[in-house]
Amino acid sequence: MSQKNFSGVLVPALTPFNADLSPDKSSFIEHCRWLLKEKADGLAVFGTTSEANSLTLEERMELLEALIESGISAKLLMPGTGACSIGDSIRLTKHAVDLGCKGCLMLPPFYYKGVSDDGLYAAFSEVIQHVGSDGLKIYLYHIPPVAQVPISLELIGRLISQYPNTVVGLKDSSGDWSNTQAVIREYPDFETFAGSEVFLLDTLKAGGVGCITATGNINPAGIRRVFENWQSDRADELQRRITEVRKTVQNYTMIPALKHLIADYSGKFEWTTVRPPLTGLAEDQSKQLMVDLKTINFSLQAREEEVIA
Amino acid sequence: MSQKNFSGVLVPALTPFNADLSPDKSSFIEHCRWLLKEKADGLAVFGTTSEANSLTLEERMELLEALIESGISAKLLMPGTGACSIGDSIRLTKHAVDLGCKGCLMLPPFYYKGVSDDGLYAAFSEVIQHVGSDGLKIYLYHIPPVAQVPISLELIGRLISQYPNTVVGLKDSSGDWSNTQAVIREYPDFETFAGSEVFLLDTLKAGGVGCITATGNINPAGIRRVFENWQSDRADELQRRITEVRKTVQNYTMIPALKHLIADYSGKFEWTTVRPPLTGLAEDQSKQLMVDLKTINFSLQAREEEVIA
Repeated sequence: MSQKNFSGVLVPALTPFNADLSPDKSSFIEHCRWLLKEKADGLAVFGTTSEANSLTLEERMELLEALIESGISAKLLMPGTGACSIGDSIRLTKHAVDLGCKGCLMLPPFYYKGVSDDGLYAAFSEVIQHVGSDGLKIYLYHIPPVAQVPISLELIGRLISQYPNTVVGLKDSSGDWSNTQAVIREYPDFETFAGSEVFLLDTLKAGGVGCITATGNINPAGIRRVFENWQSDRADELQRRITEVRKTVQNYTMIPALKHLIADYSGKFEWTTVRPPLTGLAEDQSKQLMVDLKTINFSLQAREEEVIA
Repeated sequence: MSQKNFSGVLVPALTPFNADLSPDKSSFIEHCRWLLKEKADGLAVFGTTSEANSLTLEERMELLEALIESGISAKLLMPGTGACSIGDSIRLTKHAVDLGCKGCLMLPPFYYKGVSDDGLYAAFSEVIQHVGSDGLKIYLYHIPPVAQVPISLELIGRLISQYPNTVVGLKDSSGDWSNTQAVIREYPDFETFAGSEVFLLDTLKAGGVGCITATGNINPAGIRRVFENWQSDRADELQRRITEVRKTVQNYTMIPALKHLIADYSGKFEWTTVRPPLTGLAEDQSKQLMVDLKTINFSLQAREEEVIA
């Protein structure tokens, strides 16, 4: 098997906003630094969890530049660069590649539904050919519950055979383990990431390379421990723990719940801000979330000690 | 009932592309002129049928400017200006209002699914407040089969009561007549347009103001005749005819089918070009479409005579 471009635990970093809904650049950089300190293997910035599609292209590009200027290596970055329009996707992708980002996580065009594999293939092809760089490494972003436009097994195969050095991996956020299994089985050299840490151990055992997961924003070190120890006796126990945390958080609307937890941890209330059409957690919900996490003995503070133990 | 801002038959004009997928500005202007000559009451440019979400913001703004510079009155234009990101929607909307467009057809932010009415209300509010112009007249674009994010009756009510001079109408592309009926019943002074001419006569009888319909691109005059004669004895017969044409065309993938028909009518083969992720009609499909239309005695050429008859 060839050397992997990315593997381990990547985090679709949350995007913090000021009260006026503008991006809070310094909190973004601070959060990204913290994730890396907590051993995240990379940052899949501008994913679904990052509210990327609620940002303008200019905001995304400015935030990416700020991150790299702050000293975070572009080699750790896999920005989301898929868009409804090929032109937008080319612009974002070219920008990311020019900055040296080691990968791009690419949504299919997601406005039109029920489109054919031929059409999606042509859309990805256009982007690849217009960017025209050996430095481009694409991770396909399969997230049918949100995008409503799936990336089929057959489409993956066509893209790999046409662009073997460019289309190198996939994030499977279908929540359908049988699909993740099928991708890994069909394309064993492909870098397949689970879209949730719930499937991390299973993914690694099957031959996948890791996970790119929303809850990585609050539990990066815990999830990383499963990756480090997946062949050890403790793997099942460690997996059970991160699954427990994930399942507790995902009882709530994920993005505002994660932002609430970071606000609580950092002491910065502004972190609770989300951009419409998302809404913040209601007060009773955010209180219940804290109670639920306490019940399972999880807190961002305690977690750090847990990592050391 | 107050004077209507828009009424009648509006056409979401198709966007022609050159072979390299760039927008063909002159064919666009020519098509829009033809639609107006054929008695369309207005042009809902940059709608779903226009492949608007496959265009960049810059392309949309340039095409709109070109249209107005060519001499088409901005008073006839209702460009689509909704987007996933509030910032993009503000930019498009401000541009359209500054150019004097008499309305904007606004999609809700459509990436996140299952969002609340509170979140959608906040998104529309942000756009309205940032544009901050009395000249802004919004037509909400309810198209759940594609956007997958509906605009509920309650949300319409909240927007109308907060912004009575700005949120003035809706295009209902749900395909669900009971929803159109409910909107008209609840908000009788609202300018409700059916999203398909199949519902035109029913919409007008119920108190709606017209339709904004994809097939207006090929049958504007026929559809306009129903609008002109909806209270006459011939209304049902005229409605039957436009329904027959619509149902024949919608057996095919709508956008490439319409583009094929315009290519055939104009003799410009380039008209068949669609942007990925859409794909053109297969040759057997486009042949069958022509056969089907011949069977019901419809052609763009013959239609002109039919109008005169």
